Amino acid sequence: MSSMSRPDGRAADELRAISITPGYLDHAEGSALIVQGSTRVLCAASIEDRIPGWLRGQQSGWVTAEYAMLPRATHTRTARARAQGRDVGRSQEIQRLIGRSLRAVTDLGALGERSITVDCDVIQADGGTRTAAITGAYVALYQALRWAQRAATEAGEEDPFPEFPLREAVAAVSVGIVTGASENRMLLDLCYEEDSEAGADFNIVATESGRLVEVQGTAEGSTYTRNQLDAVLDLAMQGIAELISAQKTAIAALA
Amino acid sequence: MSSMSRPDGRAADELRAISITPGYLDHAEGSALIVQGSTRVLCAASIEDRIPGWLRGQQSGWVTAEYAMLPRATHTRTARARAQGRDVGRSQEIQRLIGRSLRAVTDLGALGERSITVDCDVIQADGGTRTAAITGAYVALYQALRWAQRAATEAGEEDPFPEFPLREAVAAVSVGIVTGASENRMLLDLCYEEDSEAGADFNIVATESGRLVEVQGTAEGSTYTRNQLDAVLDLAMQGIAELISAQKTAIAALA
Amino acid sequence: MSSMSRPDGRAADELRAISITPGYLDHAEGSALIVQGSTRVLCAASIEDRIPGWLRGQQSGWVTAEYAMLPRATHTRTARARAQGRDVGRSQEIQRLIGRSLRAVTDLGALGERSITVDCDVIQADGGTRTAAITGAYVALYQALRWAQRAATEAGEEDPFPEFPLREAVAAVSVGIVTGASENRMLLDLCYEEDSEAGADFNIVATESGRLVEVQGTAEGSTYTRNQLDAVLDLAMQGIAELISAQKTAIAALA
Amino acid sequence: MSSMSRPDGRAADELRAISITPGYLDHAEGSALIVQGSTRVLCAASIEDRIPGWLRGQQSGWVTAEYAMLPRATHTRTARARAQGRDVGRSQEIQRLIGRSLRAVTDLGALGERSITVDCDVIQADGGTRTAAITGAYVALYQALRWAQRAATEAGEEDPFPEFPLREAVAAVSVGIVTGASENRMLLDLCYEEDSEAGADFNIVATESGRLVEVQGTAEGSTYTRNQLDAVLDLAMQGIAELISAQKTAIAALA
Amino acid sequence: MSSMSRPDGRAADELRAISITPGYLDHAEGSALIVQGSTRVLCAASIEDRIPGWLRGQQSGWVTAEYAMLPRATHTRTARARAQGRDVGRSQEIQRLIGRSLRAVTDLGALGERSITVDCDVIQADGGTRTAAITGAYVALYQALRWAQRAATEAGEEDPFPEFPLREAVAAVSVGIVTGASENRMLLDLCYEEDSEAGADFNIVATESGRLVEVQGTAEGSTYTRNQLDAVLDLAMQGIAELISAQKTAIAALA
Amino acid sequence: MSSMSRPDGRAADELRAISITPGYLDHAEGSALIVQGSTRVLCAASIEDRIPGWLRGQQSGWVTAEYAMLPRATHTRTARARAQGRDVGRSQEIQRLIGRSLRAVTDLGALGERSITVDCDVIQADGGTRTAAITGAYVALYQALRWAQRAATEAGEEDPFPEFPLREAVAAVSVGIVTGASENRMLLDLCYEEDSEAGADFNIVATESGRLVEVQGTAEGSTYTRNQLDAVLDLAMQGIAELISAQKTAIAALA
Repeated sequence: MSSMSRPDGRAADELRAISITPGYLDHAEGSALIVQGSTRVLCAASIEDRIPGWLRGQQSGWVTAEYAMLPRATHTRTARARAQGRDVGRSQEIQRLIGRSLRAVTDLGALGERSITVDCDVIQADGGTRTAAITGAYVALYQALRWAQRAATEAGEEDPFPEFPLREAVAAVSVGIVTGASENRMLLDLCYEEDSEAGADFNIVATESGRLVEVQGTAEGSTYTRNQLDAVLDLAMQGIAELISAQKTAIAALA
Repeated sequence: MSSMSRPDGRAADELRAISITPGYLDHAEGSALIVQGSTRVLCAASIEDRIPGWLRGQQSGWVTAEYAMLPRATHTRTARARAQGRDVGRSQEIQRLIGRSLRAVTDLGALGERSITVDCDVIQADGGTRTAAITGAYVALYQALRWAQRAATEAGEEDPFPEFPLREAVAAVSVGIVTGASENRMLLDLCYEEDSEAGADFNIVATESGRLVEVQGTAEGSTYTRNQLDAVLDLAMQGIAELISAQKTAIAALA
Repeated sequence: MSSMSRPDGRAADELRAISITPGYLDHAEGSALIVQGSTRVLCAASIEDRIPGWLRGQQSGWVTAEYAMLPRATHTRTARARAQGRDVGRSQEIQRLIGRSLRAVTDLGALGERSITVDCDVIQADGGTRTAAITGAYVALYQALRWAQRAATEAGEEDPFPEFPLREAVAAVSVGIVTGASENRMLLDLCYEEDSEAGADFNIVATESGRLVEVQGTAEGSTYTRNQLDAVLDLAMQGIAELISAQKTAIAALA
Repeated sequence: MSSMSRPDGRAADELRAISITPGYLDHAEGSALIVQGSTRVLCAASIEDRIPGWLRGQQSGWVTAEYAMLPRATHTRTARARAQGRDVGRSQEIQRLIGRSLRAVTDLGALGERSITVDCDVIQADGGTRTAAITGAYVALYQALRWAQRAATEAGEEDPFPEFPLREAVAAVSVGIVTGASENRMLLDLCYEEDSEAGADFNIVATESGRLVEVQGTAEGSTYTRNQLDAVLDLAMQGIAELISAQKTAIAALA
Repeated sequence: MSSMSRPDGRAADELRAISITPGYLDHAEGSALIVQGSTRVLCAASIEDRIPGWLRGQQSGWVTAEYAMLPRATHTRTARARAQGRDVGRSQEIQRLIGRSLRAVTDLGALGERSITVDCDVIQADGGTRTAAITGAYVALYQALRWAQRAATEAGEEDPFPEFPLREAVAAVSVGIVTGASENRMLLDLCYEEDSEAGADFNIVATESGRLVEVQGTAEGSTYTRNQLDAVLDLAMQGIAELISAQKTAIAALA
Repeated sequence: MSSMSRPDGRAADELRAISITPGYLDHAEGSALIVQGSTRVLCAASIEDRIPGWLRGQQSGWVTAEYAMLPRATHTRTARARAQGRDVGRSQEIQRLIGRSLRAVTDLGALGERSITVDCDVIQADGGTRTAAITGAYVALYQALRWAQRAATEAGEEDPFPEFPLREAVAAVSVGIVTGASENRMLLDLCYEEDSEAGADFNIVATESGRLVEVQGTAEGSTYTRNQLDAVLDLAMQGIAELISAQKTAIAALA
């Protein structure tokens, strides 16, 4: 990769083209297909009227996520067996991240004794699947909660939520530091080719009001400075603002 | 369900609306998204230049399939864990059926020492996922073989196949016998609601030239006569002819 | 194999020698050792006074089956580990077939809230193990139900079944189409050597009254016509009649 | 159980009726069905011309065993799943015991680079299945080695063994100490009912020449003295002599 | 190994240096680190106020054990995966032995409806890990029961045990018969190097009053006489007396 | 917890008492027991002269880690089964973090074709086990590399490393933001009680020269600002400097 340009011609601080299709599935209470460049993730939110045992009696609900990849989401086929072996740790790490990100903006008390599971299945992978999953999962979760309200209204029951349980939007983006011959470059929203060349990559999750939910800055065979971390965060916050705007457009289309 | 009409208003011998999108995925050598009513299956064909150990030295290739369902393909969520437990037998039975169906029309010798795996992942399930998978998998397989030819041409190599390895098209459809108050009805291409009410259901796989590849006629708590089996086959062959026509349209769009 | 004769000298429409020993086991409520040529399957029926959760409150019982092979049932040893890996799909497919076949002739309502599991363990395999398992399992099931009646009588309780829950006998047989130099031959009750040479093989399950329960016609790398399917069914129905006669002799020996 | 008599009327130092059918299976190189009272174990010996990796280059063969129970070998059905869970330790412990017992009388060097696996599958269990398995496995192993010699002769090859690899016979029996109201009784060859009442039970493996291969004396919630251990061994050695005599009769029937 | 001396210079009837540190862990109700030569086993006893389902209503408690090895307890690293595969049988066999040994000296009725699990994790292995685990587990179990009494006193409740549930101490040791050029030698408390050279090895579990709980005498490719067994038991009983003395010192340090 | 004081009386910016015992194990090439407050982690480094397949031919070595907890490391016992189920994702996430941290300071080229696995087993857990594991693993890794050099010297071979493969030290620490009534407090090196009350917790890995290797800032049901992140990093860098000083003392004791 030339140090001058990105594989798809984007500027260093430019997101990939993004599209969010809410209500992509017929059966799920909430769903969204998020396409970010060549990355496509299908998010499906399922509501159940029961909670995990350890929450019982606490007047609180729960939001969790699952993450997986279809075998041919990747450039070469990934055997399904790997998902139950070597890659299970990666998947669990990612799904815990998605779950935490959603819970950070959810008023679990307002949910009542309900559990919501958001399945994030990667249809096609080209970098940034976990961050796209978070951004899409928020839309699926939003739709599922609206569905519950509408279903109650149609059944002549009262609104299941004293207050709408989502406090604000949450979205995520990646940033990478690519070490070049003459300079290090910070790139927003890495595609696969960039991700595999980055000496350090960062996944940042933040809310509409600009607060941080998660910062994961990972160097592989490399290190980075505190000044670089600051620059990374600047870039990420700008990308997240754009992603939240795309979420709002998708949600508006639902009504 | 009234004995008079089908849930979606179709005639007894009418297929659901069908759409096949070839080349749905960027990375796979061949792919197709098949939508049949509310059922949606994503088929992805992967070519590898190696063969299973037991085929070595036989100048022959191999075609196989894998089948799985996304958790929220179903009306209520199916835990991923089930796919590794109770449902593993169902999945393996289906993927062996898909593999046999594809091999019935493939000249394995003409393939050379190549393996093709067709992943069939159910995005949304409303009955007939295994038959839709066969119909879609044929298109993905076709595209993958064409891809191998084009890739060879572009690399200045000779055509990898002495003869195009697919002898004719293959497709599949379900038929059910629903026991009503006054009469038994034969229904083509069952949706989920019909499938769960049928006393006997049949999956038929056949080729363009009208030869049978597989007949599976399964009664649950019931039985059927040889005359009924004949009527079922008549209905199936008519449906399969229509499905093969849809495959041809999709393949034509590839060129 | 010469196109003129079968390995064991049988006529094309001749069953292998069959023997059914009912009550083979001391502990099981019902059992039968079925020997069909060199194939030997031990069937054991176990009654439990409980039903699966999804049947609760429906005033109905359940009949299910399990199928497995001993490691040295085959010509070369099959590692036990395979039974939990690659072969698990084959076993589950077979045991679901056995279960459906038994339920097709059972009045589940008359069973009351009881579950019967029929274990079919292959002691020696020489083709046709799944069809022999069905034929033997019916005898084991019959004995188990008679045992329950006798046990109630001896305990001074009333007959557990308002009506004997088996409506009629069920049995199964295989047929193969072997493609020869000059002609295709239809062979009844394939042994292992014939089975591995057949281009298409069929497992047919039918009842005493000649109704079909299951038709599975599977071609591998081949296809067949509807006329051939008809001829296969003729041959199968004749074989099944003979097998049901052997079941009746075995059951008569129980009394 | 009265302190005076055994459930089946045997004397305290009396074995159960024993029968050994050599060559019970068609495919296995060696096999034996051993029936000891109501306990029935099918032993099948398989020869392979390869050895475990860690033996390579040592001019030595290997003998090992596997042990399992059919689901309805027991009074109430044992789910197959248990065999892969809680009971796996018990099975592995038993199969290691069987393997050691056979190797104690085998000249592994004389075997050459061959592996023999003896599968011991319990058809019906009424106590003493592991000891019956050892006694039967010896006969199956003996037949397999004779088979290898005959196969070589028939192929015009030389005898595969410089010396017949079995040095002497090996057999096994159980003894129990049952704690009664007025006295403790030593019982030879426990059936299931006795086994579950014994405060301590012993499995003794010994050779034809009276040497010990294994002594396992296990108390559960109880203890025993060295004098009791001596009396147990006296009883066991007498039983083993009788079992070895039954092995010799079975082997003589093979020739 | 010379037939004259042991690798660490011990006499044939000499135990390795032993040290037992009770209360090694902060969180466990009872614990002990036992060091015997280079072998180190950490034993942790956990009390729970519930019992296995099959004990319910019997006014009785339960004591069980688990046994495992850290990956680098051994000379070369043992992959963790092996512990779930090939070695699971060995671990289960050992943990059942530890459990039986503890139950032999425990009055389960006096325990009340409590379960105690003693985890025995091998930090470093140099032979005799199972016998060291039994010896250490007794100390951990003792401390846990004292802890329960003290906790009750501090809470102003009555003593949980009508009678202290441990009747007497239990400990274990290994003995081996090493076959030398000119003579066979009996060695007490084998280290790893000796264990791998012994033709027969014995694990003996006995109580303070000299009663036997378990005798396991295992020959590998070898046999032994009854006279040798007697000599082995003499040696073992002497070693166990010394080990029980070390247990008493450790327990005294707890008070 | 009062907002004024920490459970163990430390100042907000004070590490727990730390002790590192290098060479804790006899068999491992490198090892260290690290005790940080009540947290104890045993780190063992194993060197093998082979590399993963994907590194072959690249003149490079590899460093990886495994992480696990003993069942009674925790306040209440954690079943071993959980480590293979629900917790496997957590363990894999942690061991990948440890591996990346070590590789960040290792010159993999200088290692040559060698793999080093560092097993980090938690003997007792009181918060901060992953950060303690990193700090201890560095010492074990250092000792293993020195061992390889000494072993070569003793064998009269040349130094295996052209250059000592560790470029500088690496260590890790946690920081938490605890939300109090009147103020939010930043606490260095959280114990378990503090960790479970923190609204956001951070694991920071850095090198001796003050460069960052990993920043993980995780909010659960909460969020944090960029200013807070800065303050967290200040505190962490101070703690890491102290930990690296403790590593140096431990390494000096090795020589």
